[in-house]
Amino acid sequence: MATLGLIGYKDASAEVRAIYDDIMATRKTDWINNFWQALAHDPATLRRTWQSIKEIMAPGALDALTKEMIYLAVSATNQCPYCIASHTAAARKQGMTDAVLAELIAVVGMANETNRLASGYQVEIDDRFKTVDG
Amino acid sequence: MATLGLIGYKDASAEVRAIYDDIMATRKTDWINNFWQALAHDPATLRRTWQSIKEIMAPGALDALTKEMIYLAVSATNQCPYCIASHTAAARKQGMTDAVLAELIAVVGMANETNRLASGYQVEIDDRFKTVDG
Amino acid sequence: MATLGLIGYKDASAEVRAIYDDIMATRKTDWINNFWQALAHDPATLRRTWQSIKEIMAPGALDALTKEMIYLAVSATNQCPYCIASHTAAARKQGMTDAVLAELIAVVGMANETNRLASGYQVEIDDRFKTVDG
Amino acid sequence: MATLGLIGYKDASAEVRAIYDDIMATRKTDWINNFWQALAHDPATLRRTWQSIKEIMAPGALDALTKEMIYLAVSATNQCPYCIASHTAAARKQGMTDAVLAELIAVVGMANETNRLASGYQVEIDDRFKTVDG
Amino acid sequence: MATLGLIGYKDASAEVRAIYDDIMATRKTDWINNFWQALAHDPATLRRTWQSIKEIMAPGALDALTKEMIYLAVSATNQCPYCIASHTAAARKQGMTDAVLAELIAVVGMANETNRLASGYQVEIDDRFKTVDG
Amino acid sequence: MATLGLIGYKDASAEVRAIYDDIMATRKTDWINNFWQALAHDPATLRRTWQSIKEIMAPGALDALTKEMIYLAVSATNQCPYCIASHTAAARKQGMTDAVLAELIAVVGMANETNRLASGYQVEIDDRFKTVDG
Repeated sequence: MATLGLIGYKDASAEVRAIYDDIMATRKTDWINNFWQALAHDPATLRRTWQSIKEIMAPGALDALTKEMIYLAVSATNQCPYCIASHTAAARKQGMTDAVLAELIAVVGMANETNRLASGYQVEIDDRFKTVDG
Repeated sequence: MATLGLIGYKDASAEVRAIYDDIMATRKTDWINNFWQALAHDPATLRRTWQSIKEIMAPGALDALTKEMIYLAVSATNQCPYCIASHTAAARKQGMTDAVLAELIAVVGMANETNRLASGYQVEIDDRFKTVDG
Repeated sequence: MATLGLIGYKDASAEVRAIYDDIMATRKTDWINNFWQALAHDPATLRRTWQSIKEIMAPGALDALTKEMIYLAVSATNQCPYCIASHTAAARKQGMTDAVLAELIAVVGMANETNRLASGYQVEIDDRFKTVDG
Repeated sequence: MATLGLIGYKDASAEVRAIYDDIMATRKTDWINNFWQALAHDPATLRRTWQSIKEIMAPGALDALTKEMIYLAVSATNQCPYCIASHTAAARKQGMTDAVLAELIAVVGMANETNRLASGYQVEIDDRFKTVDG
Repeated sequence: MATLGLIGYKDASAEVRAIYDDIMATRKTDWINNFWQALAHDPATLRRTWQSIKEIMAPGALDALTKEMIYLAVSATNQCPYCIASHTAAARKQGMTDAVLAELIAVVGMANETNRLASGYQVEIDDRFKTVDG
Repeated sequence: MATLGLIGYKDASAEVRAIYDDIMATRKTDWINNFWQALAHDPATLRRTWQSIKEIMAPGALDALTKEMIYLAVSATNQCPYCIASHTAAARKQGMTDAVLAELIAVVGMANETNRLASGYQVEIDDRFKTVDG
């Protein structure tokens, strides 16, 4: 159970409701998941986190699906159960198929492996990788 | 300096050279970066790792650039300096622009933040996120 | 369920009971949480861990509440569910209010974000930060 | 070297300079450390990150020194060299003595140890730790 | 519940069944644990992962028990609940006693502690540790 | 450079010298590596850490080499450069050959991969793995 409990829409202050409304409108959904209901105990963090997420996850140089997949890749690497569950759902809503999910997880697994091969063998960075121009 | 040193092409066994050749042919490049030269002390791991990378990173349901970006997202999350340097270069070779890099890192940063907000508040997974159908 | 099960006070050896007694006396409580009951299968580790915790968490240059908050910050970063639950309770016992908890988690989240921005952009340490005198 | 290089004050756009000015004014300093100069390639992330840091790190329920210590605890746990160096300096500026630093690191070390003892033994969360009231 | 569900032996394709058969034969067991049943949705990853595991975990310069203990040490460090549970069982099958388990976890805990003491104090690598010859 | 600098034998207090002497005698060596010289600014932590290391790393149910290999596996997983360098040297001193090192790193890499496959697919723990008897 969330440390401070959850704050549902009915019990929320006007300030929190306005953020909930924006979340639902932006995401074209009619419910608020537990993450936001837990954060609502700290309206300043709720507002700042939502504004950041809204800005960062909007399509730009990267499309929304790719951004959700990157979010999921980070969450799987960190082994955050809540985040894996919620961003798997979010990526699917953006169109992630099972085949894409499978390839995504395969890359995440492999990257976690070679990260440790590189550190385990104490491999030095190649000079060619150090230049600003790549 | 890599724990066991590096094995350059000239000093490599025929077995290792064959893998080096395949790496260069697959990647359309004429050099072998330190990671593989360090792994070459263990030809079985060199071969297995290369075969896995070659299979996983080939375009499929996801294109090669997206896969490299996911690789970079994992490496930045794990804070593996070698891997960040090498996969930044690899993603650029696949077409990652500076604008894409910036959005990618922004998502990685945000995901690492909300992963800890979720764990810090001990947020439980919503029932809607638990179904197989998402 | 803990790998080796839990050892309650009644079933504990005299050696383990003495440590349980010291834990309860030091913490001014009348029960032993699962962590210690799981460790009790290895009395040497139980004793060493308790002695270290007792020494480290005693008020010194830092007060007990600040130490518990740091403990919680680490546990949230590592996403250790048991540790987050137990140290949230411990910090509250030391006087952590909900407002303090909220600010603590906000800092933990932000630090985890900027840690990856720094690594993602491969930022070099400023010379001014390298001096012993700070 | 930072992936995209650093943008010094002289070479910065008016938008970036305004943020640099606010950073220096808020921190009562006359220079901009590499982190911000690297982020400046992405003005949106520079602005958002600075605004979040400014809001989160301002004294509130927790004082500025405690917040910097929590930041440092997270950075040491994540083993982010840049972040450890910069937040060690920042915490010292807020008054962290060597004695405080030593106790802080001792707590961080111990928390990282017991986090793995708890996970290694698969310890279940005590019912008493699950209640909202702690 | 696994994201894509589990694929039992009865419902598996011939390709997947052949891998299940090899897993059971190699491990001298008559069941397939959830990990492989979840991976079976991606036969390419199932095959590659099993082949790598089979090759890596076979006795060589290190015996099978030591390899399982290293696997468990990594899993406890990463705090992966599934992996800790499954590799605790696997190590026991290879002969890990409770006394060995206790010493293993003690080392894992201590290593996680000193890793952060080293990073927290920003300790530089000794020149003597940098030579290829160790 | 270590945050508080290093304290060499000549400049050390009698209390610190006694610990340095015990380290050198126990390890049959004639020098003190940077880690301990950095910790020496906090004699309580120096003493406690050394006593714990001395107790934990002594041969018991596990031999000294296996313990060093587990230490190295954790350090490579955490990507702690200092710890990887120092424990690679320590393990070699205990007899780790290059062939053993290669197999060790291969297992560490694979474990880090499958840890994320398990979390990425949200695999539930098998009932058979939950029993105390394994």
